Amino acid sequence: MNHYPKHLCKLIEILKRFPGVGSKSAERFAFHMLDWPNAHLEEMTQTIRELKVHLKHCDECGCLMDQAQCQFCSETKRDLHILCIVASPKEVYSIEQTREYKGLYHILGGLLSPMDDCSPSDLRIDKLMERIHKFSVEEIIIALDSTLEGDATSLHLQRELANLPVRLSRLAFGLPMGSSLDYVDGGTLSRAFSGRRLV
Amino acid sequence: MNHYPKHLCKLIEILKRFPGVGSKSAERFAFHMLDWPNAHLEEMTQTIRELKVHLKHCDECGCLMDQAQCQFCSETKRDLHILCIVASPKEVYSIEQTREYKGLYHILGGLLSPMDDCSPSDLRIDKLMERIHKFSVEEIIIALDSTLEGDATSLHLQRELANLPVRLSRLAFGLPMGSSLDYVDGGTLSRAFSGRRLV
Repeated sequence: MNHYPKHLCKLIEILKRFPGVGSKSAERFAFHMLDWPNAHLEEMTQTIRELKVHLKHCDECGCLMDQAQCQFCSETKRDLHILCIVASPKEVYSIEQTREYKGLYHILGGLLSPMDDCSPSDLRIDKLMERIHKFSVEEIIIALDSTLEGDATSLHLQRELANLPVRLSRLAFGLPMGSSLDYVDGGTLSRAFSGRRLV
Repeated sequence: MNHYPKHLCKLIEILKRFPGVGSKSAERFAFHMLDWPNAHLEEMTQTIRELKVHLKHCDECGCLMDQAQCQFCSETKRDLHILCIVASPKEVYSIEQTREYKGLYHILGGLLSPMDDCSPSDLRIDKLMERIHKFSVEEIIIALDSTLEGDATSLHLQRELANLPVRLSRLAFGLPMGSSLDYVDGGTLSRAFSGRRLV
């Protein structure tokens, strides 16, 4: 750290909390903020201050909501018998953008990871069980990352849900769109082979 | 933009004001902030709110200061007869880190750029003239970017200072340290040739 004024150092340390932001970027951000008009700074503090007032998590599905009702749970056109399990609220919006899915969501609140100290009791699995019974869910789609943590969590869910009369599936693994075989890693390629489909 | 809750959209728009941050990064930052403890959010708003209270620009050199006195102008060991001209306060700290320079600084407050609507009257040139006379400055080092705007500003300063009895220099252009000739662009290479030094 350079010998910046103390208050600037504090701001830089705070900005480094953003994901993927190191010292260099945080310094750039901080110096940029010094040139912002007061109105922009004021707007930022106001917005951050009201963040947790305006944005709540739905008690049912765990999605973000800024109204009294959850936009997903309250939408009448959705199929109550299908649940899509995702790790965090952000992924819901990516799935919504595909317009492929019209069921409900269930936010787990994380992925199993001994490194990050996240164990099954930290996930919203009890609530999941409750909802499966409440809505007599028929199909569950596991939409978790294709990482070690995603695989572990998926496996745990498979075991937990094994005795229930639900159709359980996980998102397909394979080549991402527009990829050249030359540049695809071995793991992806072997998953694409084992998951090949008749055409 | 996805159909995020309204307050989240507002936060994302604000975060996009950081340099080099587009929609994707701003969304990541915003969702990350939702997971921050309240104390972190509170600390951030507090720090931003106090930013312009604690950090002022020195009336003389234009550097940042968080005390009543500018740390550069008030340091008694510095040579008052040498001035280093830089565009903004951030660069001062990079130069300080080299420990090569022990004179005073002068912040121009920008670079000439018709695109960004920055003309000579927006730069602190009058103050520069005043300080040159006040401290009977003997040497001026122009430490501006090696860009079109940096070159234009440097040329403008050379003309303005032409009739003064000061030694005027600009930072050297050439190969950056640890670079291979194969990867150096033509412009840099030709500058390195024309600026070659006897060994």
